[in-house]
Amino acid sequence: MKVLVLNCGSSSIRYKLFDMPEGQASTGGLLERIGESSSVLRHTSAGREVRREGRVPDHKEGLSWVVRALMDPEHGAIREPSEIDAVGHRVVHGGVRFTGSVLVTPEVLEAIREFSTLAPLHNPPNLIGIEAAGDLLPHAPQVAVFDTAFHGTMPRYAYLYAIPYEYYEKYHIRRYGFHGTSHRYVTLRAAQILGRPLEELRLITCHLGNGCSMAAVKGGRSVDTSMGFTPLEGLVMGTRSGDVDPAIIPFLGRREGLSADEVEKVLNRRSGLLGLSGISNDMREVERAAEGGDERAKLALEVFAYRVKKYIGAYIAVLGGLDALVFTAGIGENSYRMRERICEGLEVFGIALDHRRNRRTVGRREEDISREGSPVRVLVVPTDEELLIAEDTFDIVTKEGGWKG
Amino acid sequence: MKVLVLNCGSSSIRYKLFDMPEGQASTGGLLERIGESSSVLRHTSAGREVRREGRVPDHKEGLSWVVRALMDPEHGAIREPSEIDAVGHRVVHGGVRFTGSVLVTPEVLEAIREFSTLAPLHNPPNLIGIEAAGDLLPHAPQVAVFDTAFHGTMPRYAYLYAIPYEYYEKYHIRRYGFHGTSHRYVTLRAAQILGRPLEELRLITCHLGNGCSMAAVKGGRSVDTSMGFTPLEGLVMGTRSGDVDPAIIPFLGRREGLSADEVEKVLNRRSGLLGLSGISNDMREVERAAEGGDERAKLALEVFAYRVKKYIGAYIAVLGGLDALVFTAGIGENSYRMRERICEGLEVFGIALDHRRNRRTVGRREEDISREGSPVRVLVVPTDEELLIAEDTFDIVTKEGGWKG
Repeated sequence: MKVLVLNCGSSSIRYKLFDMPEGQASTGGLLERIGESSSVLRHTSAGREVRREGRVPDHKEGLSWVVRALMDPEHGAIREPSEIDAVGHRVVHGGVRFTGSVLVTPEVLEAIREFSTLAPLHNPPNLIGIEAAGDLLPHAPQVAVFDTAFHGTMPRYAYLYAIPYEYYEKYHIRRYGFHGTSHRYVTLRAAQILGRPLEELRLITCHLGNGCSMAAVKGGRSVDTSMGFTPLEGLVMGTRSGDVDPAIIPFLGRREGLSADEVEKVLNRRSGLLGLSGISNDMREVERAAEGGDERAKLALEVFAYRVKKYIGAYIAVLGGLDALVFTAGIGENSYRMRERICEGLEVFGIALDHRRNRRTVGRREEDISREGSPVRVLVVPTDEELLIAEDTFDIVTKEGGWKG
Repeated sequence: MKVLVLNCGSSSIRYKLFDMPEGQASTGGLLERIGESSSVLRHTSAGREVRREGRVPDHKEGLSWVVRALMDPEHGAIREPSEIDAVGHRVVHGGVRFTGSVLVTPEVLEAIREFSTLAPLHNPPNLIGIEAAGDLLPHAPQVAVFDTAFHGTMPRYAYLYAIPYEYYEKYHIRRYGFHGTSHRYVTLRAAQILGRPLEELRLITCHLGNGCSMAAVKGGRSVDTSMGFTPLEGLVMGTRSGDVDPAIIPFLGRREGLSADEVEKVLNRRSGLLGLSGISNDMREVERAAEGGDERAKLALEVFAYRVKKYIGAYIAVLGGLDALVFTAGIGENSYRMRERICEGLEVFGIALDHRRNRRTVGRREEDISREGSPVRVLVVPTDEELLIAEDTFDIVTKEGGWKG
């Protein structure tokens, strides 16, 4: 079965074509700047990148570019659109309803539309992508894989804020958490690497990329996570503040003459590593500047690591112990210095690194980087959300989608 | 030396008269509803309460009521105002400047006034109290004891938020922490109870009252605390939400048609135990309702305890270990059920209660409630901020205040 995995952003489509159940993907790419004067498609096939520019007014046209690239006689993987058997979509917000992936039906579409109030920047382009795929590939069943779904198992006392309860009832204000597909992927891989049944494992998974979140995972189920009602809460990120005293919003509003929405933008776009360092939202650049002696870059790294440390401690309390700590995503997979900073001083929890192994683990390499004999395993597991979306799509389409093969 | 300790709120004066250095206080009281049509003074002397009502237009008149009550031939403790040798004030915000108690000078007054921008509800009445005492007791040196001071030892990476650095420079937005006098008091007592030098102790102190905060204390110095730029951040409190996704402020603003200031009021006054339970901000009433089967009351208790648990884990990460966990203030001293809930499941950290001892420790009783042989001591230490204010006042006045005795 050929499964096309799509991640539609407000002006972009990321795609990858999988052969399932093998999980092989030789073709994929990224179309950016949809709706702008000139859009760019970068298509990768068998390791070679092909670039194409032109005007792509909307996602439907964008998706037809993608399908044409997939059919390219030289760089493509299929001869006609009907070879795409199913489409799997990353959808950001599944609200209170979806705790797992689902076959897209008119009712599911309606629910995703409804949850757009909770993810106004993300769900609408996800919906447009589903509609465009429905138009262009009407034969292919579609599956929605939600970023929030994995955290749907959190207990009530972990997802409720201590605000008037009516706001939970009226507006569904609660912790949802995001990056769920990534946390789920590395959870499943960790159990395989450790060779232990998922049911008995207590894991802390750290997705540290441009967006950052952590999850406490007990027996394969997320029981708490650091992102909240929105992706703003929790860890320090590239441009997001993570946790702050909420009273800073009205205070800054008064002082700077900004509305609450404008302060929220500052916290989402001009804060985090960028705001502290004044240099960049990119960990590599901040690390370079810190090595060069820049004081504020050093400070940004310290604050970043300190926040992760505190969440590790908090989640050990939540889990009642810890079997493995898992690092993933851009920073988690590549910044051995940051992993070192984070784990330093956590020996009290049985966390200790094998520094040689840690330092050589970069570039999408799976590795156990903990010190021999230390009680908690520390793993680096490159994430692969697309693969998990392809797997969910394959599973659901073969079971519920009437696929005969 | 007779030291009068004053805690001036916006419409109240709490006072206590100490004999120093003995630390004995037989007289004290509370004047409430200053500025309203009828004010009430409740004065306690040798265990007996005397009540007086009347119109008290301002704090200066209020303080003269207090001084008259102290001189009452029947219920008083002094014959004339000149017997008050010094006055110690609780002042909420010492900003970035005061990391310890200080003798009040015109320059100190000016600084407290400056920090009113950071504590607009608290510093102004504290200032009025200092001025009233200066007018009525001009012979007595005054000392300011700041609620923020104990946390002045936090490292930079613990007190900085990941927001644009310019806001720290321009507006001094950072974590300050509050309840410092209480955290300091129980820290000092804990070292005495444990019979160990403060320098080698790693403590987590939990001040759980109507306002709630925790501190990580290493070698006697606060290295992190849960309240932040304002007292809104951190734990669930009587009416305060503590930690929330900051994006909830603009979201609720849009949905409910509220300004950021108004949402902040909701988070400060209608949230916490009250908001979750819908019953009360008082732990005793919420516990009663939960025992009677009320689901939302149970939920409020679960969320409250869960938040404390997470901070315990986080602070063990910060401290690199833990020698003792200390409970204080109304809930911490009296709710053995809440202490039980909090400590349940924290055996991984070496925290375990002696349930019989825990249950009998109520009503301002100092006790080690940890299980025999468990690695972390768990202490209940009734707080006494007034005593510490009196001690600081005595120390400073005898050293710097030119007091001859």
